[in-house]
Amino acid sequence: MNAVTIRTISELRRAVGEARRGDRTIGCVPTMGALHAGHGSLMGRARAECDFVVVTLFVNPAQFNDVSDYERYPRTLDADLAFSDARGVDAVFAPSAEEMYPREQQAFVDVGEVAEFMEGRFRPGHFRGVATVVAKLLNIVAPDKAYFGEKDAQQIAVVRRVVTDLNLPVEIVEVATVREPDGLALSSRNARLSPEQRQMAVALFEALSVARRCVEAGERDTATIKRCAAEVFLRFPALRPEYFEIADPERFVPVNRVDGPVRLAGAAWVGQVRLIDNVLAIPGAR
Amino acid sequence: MNAVTIRTISELRRAVGEARRGDRTIGCVPTMGALHAGHGSLMGRARAECDFVVVTLFVNPAQFNDVSDYERYPRTLDADLAFSDARGVDAVFAPSAEEMYPREQQAFVDVGEVAEFMEGRFRPGHFRGVATVVAKLLNIVAPDKAYFGEKDAQQIAVVRRVVTDLNLPVEIVEVATVREPDGLALSSRNARLSPEQRQMAVALFEALSVARRCVEAGERDTATIKRCAAEVFLRFPALRPEYFEIADPERFVPVNRVDGPVRLAGAAWVGQVRLIDNVLAIPGAR
Repeated sequence: MNAVTIRTISELRRAVGEARRGDRTIGCVPTMGALHAGHGSLMGRARAECDFVVVTLFVNPAQFNDVSDYERYPRTLDADLAFSDARGVDAVFAPSAEEMYPREQQAFVDVGEVAEFMEGRFRPGHFRGVATVVAKLLNIVAPDKAYFGEKDAQQIAVVRRVVTDLNLPVEIVEVATVREPDGLALSSRNARLSPEQRQMAVALFEALSVARRCVEAGERDTATIKRCAAEVFLRFPALRPEYFEIADPERFVPVNRVDGPVRLAGAAWVGQVRLIDNVLAIPGAR
Repeated sequence: MNAVTIRTISELRRAVGEARRGDRTIGCVPTMGALHAGHGSLMGRARAECDFVVVTLFVNPAQFNDVSDYERYPRTLDADLAFSDARGVDAVFAPSAEEMYPREQQAFVDVGEVAEFMEGRFRPGHFRGVATVVAKLLNIVAPDKAYFGEKDAQQIAVVRRVVTDLNLPVEIVEVATVREPDGLALSSRNARLSPEQRQMAVALFEALSVARRCVEAGERDTATIKRCAAEVFLRFPALRPEYFEIADPERFVPVNRVDGPVRLAGAAWVGQVRLIDNVLAIPGAR
């Protein structure tokens, strides 16, 4: 193992402080662990762009609106350490919940409009938890760049708002979603799907793809585009869609009419597992 | 003039970045300008403890619950620059409101219980504005230490919560309140008092002092202590007390019984001017 595993904030700061001497750049990949090739892609990008790469592994209780989702969230620490090490990461920061929240948290970062719809609407408090823990982690690691996956596109928009509005001195780098051969976006929650559910799960991406082709073909009416997506869901009754939305790609506010690039985003349940995915669609792209 | 005046975030970061080379320590004194000897005391402490001292001058619109208070807040930039320069400050950061809030702010720092009572109760939104701008300024200046005056004791408690809960890498230093010979706490708002009002204004400190003596003499019942303070206010009818509270000195939650050190804090109006003050009282101290 070359990657150092660090459990405390003070140790992490010491390691980063040493690494920073001599103008070396610091990259941070915040994760909740249960690492997969999507995280691997973030690490690869960070490794290519920064001198010292820190991966954080922290299942943040504050961002789970659903306690049972928090409890069931996969935890695979040993595998995650080996995975990070194999990708040339310099340090893995894996704090306990007590280290991150030593007493009742009173200060939270709240984000407005960008956190209001889609994930914000269906997971009350989720983005407050995300914004707060990302602010904490960025203040602890103090990286030059932090890497986030496009799969959580609204999360990236929220994090960008936190960074610009609170003047955090870090650049946010967005890395494209990694997908299975059939199109299913990689997600730590996929591990909880049965083989049959796994077959069905791709319907979310298919609905997004159909809707994207609709936009690319010139359709501007979002009700029509949503109907195309709804037909896909009808073919996969094992999937229970929670929302399917067409939004401004920066503000993440739903639009009624497509007048430029849009973010198509959806959430759907397969059994007890909630999956999300999204794609960017550009009118007239084909 | 030796102190550099800086108007933009990028320039300020460049200046601090250069100062930081060679392990020099950075001190920050956040102010809203209209500087007086209270600020001078903060600067003196920062100058003694840090290699490079930044004073920030920014009348933060986000922390004024009352627009007319914001508009009437004294602004004395030239005098403030000379004042800072005379105290050996290295850089004065005086950004415009547009520089600090270039677009509608969406991300705010919200603080819980510690911001709920006293100033938090009578100035709705005030501490959200304070917490947010302090987070911004600390992220911009990235000091090792930041200096705040005891006169705004609840503000210090709020700032401490922001720093610890969001893991900002800065030490908060509290500096004792500077008072006029008669006891009136120095405040930029004192400049708006007429000579007659100025005479009356000291009643707030007198009420606090009477209550403190009550605590020091062993009185534990807060209703009794408040009655002592109320008698002082009765002698100064030009003062309209807004609150007079006896609170836990860290949590800033009012207590019903004195069981240890308490913070006595009050707010009162003299004409159109709202004054606040506070003292620490230790049972049995005399």
